[in-house]
Amino acid sequence: MPRLLVAALMILTLSVSAQEQPALRVEKQGSFFVGGRDIHSDTLSSTTTRAPNGTITVDQVYVHYQIPVGAAGHPITFIHGCCLTGKTWETTPDGRMGWDEYFVRKGRGVYVIDQASRGRSASNPALINRVRSGKAVAEQLPPVSSVSHEEAWTIFRFGPEYPKVFAGMQFPLDAQAEFWKQMVPDWIDALPTPNPTVPALSELARRLNGTVLVSHSQSGIYPFQTAVLSTKGIAGIVAIEPAACPKPSDDMRPFARMPILVLFGDYVAQSPRWAPRMQACREFAQAAGRAGGHVEVISLPDAGFHGNSHMLMQDRNSLRVADWLLGWIDREIEHR
Amino acid sequence: MPRLLVAALMILTLSVSAQEQPALRVEKQGSFFVGGRDIHSDTLSSTTTRAPNGTITVDQVYVHYQIPVGAAGHPITFIHGCCLTGKTWETTPDGRMGWDEYFVRKGRGVYVIDQASRGRSASNPALINRVRSGKAVAEQLPPVSSVSHEEAWTIFRFGPEYPKVFAGMQFPLDAQAEFWKQMVPDWIDALPTPNPTVPALSELARRLNGTVLVSHSQSGIYPFQTAVLSTKGIAGIVAIEPAACPKPSDDMRPFARMPILVLFGDYVAQSPRWAPRMQACREFAQAAGRAGGHVEVISLPDAGFHGNSHMLMQDRNSLRVADWLLGWIDREIEHR
Repeated sequence: MPRLLVAALMILTLSVSAQEQPALRVEKQGSFFVGGRDIHSDTLSSTTTRAPNGTITVDQVYVHYQIPVGAAGHPITFIHGCCLTGKTWETTPDGRMGWDEYFVRKGRGVYVIDQASRGRSASNPALINRVRSGKAVAEQLPPVSSVSHEEAWTIFRFGPEYPKVFAGMQFPLDAQAEFWKQMVPDWIDALPTPNPTVPALSELARRLNGTVLVSHSQSGIYPFQTAVLSTKGIAGIVAIEPAACPKPSDDMRPFARMPILVLFGDYVAQSPRWAPRMQACREFAQAAGRAGGHVEVISLPDAGFHGNSHMLMQDRNSLRVADWLLGWIDREIEHR
Repeated sequence: MPRLLVAALMILTLSVSAQEQPALRVEKQGSFFVGGRDIHSDTLSSTTTRAPNGTITVDQVYVHYQIPVGAAGHPITFIHGCCLTGKTWETTPDGRMGWDEYFVRKGRGVYVIDQASRGRSASNPALINRVRSGKAVAEQLPPVSSVSHEEAWTIFRFGPEYPKVFAGMQFPLDAQAEFWKQMVPDWIDALPTPNPTVPALSELARRLNGTVLVSHSQSGIYPFQTAVLSTKGIAGIVAIEPAACPKPSDDMRPFARMPILVLFGDYVAQSPRWAPRMQACREFAQAAGRAGGHVEVISLPDAGFHGNSHMLMQDRNSLRVADWLLGWIDREIEHR
């Protein structure tokens, strides 16, 4: 269909249904895996109903994607954080549109992953059955942990401690029951370093021939580790509230080859967990700058946004923050 | 926008790009959870980095949905089987369109779930940490098992035994490496009966005010158990290769209140696992019929489809089977 006609139809649609959301026009959507390796085990099961011996595939990473009609610019890869899955970027707990759809509506291809051993990306239960069947001792069990509502409250900066709330909080705490359902057990302490998600992201970036890696929290270091493996296919990095940035003493050359944004929400100074992390990211930015890189560390209040939690992609002003981020990507990655 | 104009635009779009797939027009998409309950534990973690005490939410069921522009008829709820997730219904291992998108393109609202304790629906690691920290013995570990490629080969009827292939097999075995990546550990033996997925499905059905529950394999019995809880919101049941049907001696009244299809693929007679299960479903159908119900048991070869595996939604002829199933739903559920 000629582009002009497409544009005319889109304008027509927009003008007729200005009040309601226009239909989303998807060129292509689907899912696939990157990474993964076969392993053999004799403790895949410890029940009588299933065979213990055999081959399974682990360390693969599930990827769901959606490409809009008329996509432009680099696609975005969203990488969730601790104890969460790709659901992070979908419908918010209070039922508003997630960044996964919003970025598609803004003309971007969007790829959402589940980290290795999380969500639709398989974990490996062999050690659990090894201990359960008496072939190994309890200490060898994989450390699979859940973060409680109470602990998450402080980590996600809903308030200084459970159940106190920071004044002006933008997270939709009325819908917190729906948010807690997003949390899943975390196998990360049972996995090697770098996390198998890292080489999988490298495979994805090369396959997409250019993508902006958008991490969150626990996954904050992954895109940097991916860039150390290879900068191929990484058009830029957006680290949202990263648990860690590269150390200033690290080799800065990979990070000098792409625009990088480190983005933090509000109340960081009041958080003994997050304040030193933001400071460490500023020191990384300075080191990268000295090596010829372009790393911006932005605190949302300095950009005019107030009240944002650690889960800023789900906060009440999430789509206004998304607009700001899209502007940064356009300016610093597409047109720099 | 007036319906006639929508129709005109759709015809225009279809005629201009007859060769390629037209754009998918989505009215609404997103995700949410049904079910779930809060539990307290002092072994959420067994590492020094995370607090062991607190509240987590378990037994919730993740639901992803997509509603096309101009949706008609009851929405479809897809429920995956053993050792798999909602990925079952998405892009096939060899990269073809999954039923999740195809049914939307055919005008149906589609809801895809991850069973409780699977995929994006949280499992409960408290017992693992209880044993790991020495507060419980190894026998108390949850039986979390993986099914190996070799065992799955026979269960999924790719052939009589690994790695033999049934003649005429429609499953895309060239892409089997991608298929194995879909498999995840199964917590089902650690869960109560009925599975927490069952009351969650009941909540979903009531919320949708009418949906066709489409199960597969392990989940085959769930929609029947849901109907026993309440028939409210269940417009019909399609059990694809169910691991079990209700017993003929069960109370048939819930099953007499909705159209039911039990669908099997090919090579069933050659499978010691599946042949008796299909026979048991036929006996259920007869019992339901005597109680005034309408239960059809269809073998795909009898409907003209040959070479289908247990994973028939991913077989090479999957979209032709989908067309047949859409016809059955139109005829038996919408217009009966």
